[in-house]
Amino acid sequence: MDNKALYNISYGVFMLATKHEGKVNGCITNTCMQVANGPTRVAIACINANYTCELIKKSGIFALSLLDETCDFDTIRHFGMQSGRDVDKFAPGGSFDINTLPADVNQIPYLKEHACSVLSCRVLDSKDLGSHTLFIAEIVDAVLLNDKKPLTYADYQNRVKPRPAAKKEDASDRKIVGWKCRICGYVYEGSELPDDYTCPICKHPKEDFEPVYG
Amino acid sequence: MDNKALYNISYGVFMLATKHEGKVNGCITNTCMQVANGPTRVAIACINANYTCELIKKSGIFALSLLDETCDFDTIRHFGMQSGRDVDKFAPGGSFDINTLPADVNQIPYLKEHACSVLSCRVLDSKDLGSHTLFIAEIVDAVLLNDKKPLTYADYQNRVKPRPAAKKEDASDRKIVGWKCRICGYVYEGSELPDDYTCPICKHPKEDFEPVYG
Repeated sequence: MDNKALYNISYGVFMLATKHEGKVNGCITNTCMQVANGPTRVAIACINANYTCELIKKSGIFALSLLDETCDFDTIRHFGMQSGRDVDKFAPGGSFDINTLPADVNQIPYLKEHACSVLSCRVLDSKDLGSHTLFIAEIVDAVLLNDKKPLTYADYQNRVKPRPAAKKEDASDRKIVGWKCRICGYVYEGSELPDDYTCPICKHPKEDFEPVYG
Repeated sequence: MDNKALYNISYGVFMLATKHEGKVNGCITNTCMQVANGPTRVAIACINANYTCELIKKSGIFALSLLDETCDFDTIRHFGMQSGRDVDKFAPGGSFDINTLPADVNQIPYLKEHACSVLSCRVLDSKDLGSHTLFIAEIVDAVLLNDKKPLTYADYQNRVKPRPAAKKEDASDRKIVGWKCRICGYVYEGSELPDDYTCPICKHPKEDFEPVYG
């Protein structure tokens, strides 16, 4: 089985947010598809280790901001490369201030600046698939925000995501003790990362790992 | 709720095929996403009315050809706009001859010419969502076929799909009795199609319907 064959599945890029008992959090995902009509249903897959996933299991609601082609790496990094367990991603006074962002019908914040649609959803069913939970949801509300094109996952990989920086010159006298995934933060322990290695959490290839020095 | 907001979800385009007790059939779908890793799982949604869906429920296996950017409208029309209940889409001597197409590990035919990957899958779980059934499957095999870009659903809509032909000149003396969906063949009975009408089967808008004359 060639894992690269799966990279040809096309996806969008989304900011998935939820709210439970005053806790608000959001993360970046690339999995959403409409799975039924009359009535409309969507399915999303969310990494079980993510705080947003933990909260959705409790709240049963989420807002999916469909990111558009103007979305920058700072937005992806803010929501996708740090955990809501460590920081408040919607902190007042910050770049994504809960008090200035718009909120959907469930009072969940969404992105207006870099998103072309927002889908407000209520979970009807879920299935734990090990690494991820699959949520099947009804659409409570859906709003078209602008006429920009949606950001595709391929476009994110090819255009939005920065190329890994060449750090070897500065680090010639330091010892590599591990490799950290630049996408999700997972750390592989060991000095050499195998060529065919993919992140066990977010499935990204070796090229997305950066060295961790001892 | 604005249905157009949902059009911003990004998809690929796939030829979904299966085989059951000697019956082989395939259709065009746009829904597939990876929903877990370690082990890898994918989910697809399939229209219940489709013959392919009926067969997958019995066979429990399918091959998903991930169509690439070179795919033409003839291929889409062949698999997507006629029913396997009426014609044998893999008929010997035809454009997609079962005897000349490659077959996957489950002996299901796949497209090599216009597909960049093929995923061979075994259904682990399914859920009937009314219009569609959601299948969760394991990947038995995955093969990268070429290095072309996958065809996205947006690209299919904007580039591959022909514009509706202007037929009004020829039809001025004929009476419109219905409207036929050019995507799935569903027929709306009535002379006028409402502006906000969408196909109840495949969800396509009014623009994809052509008049049926009495």
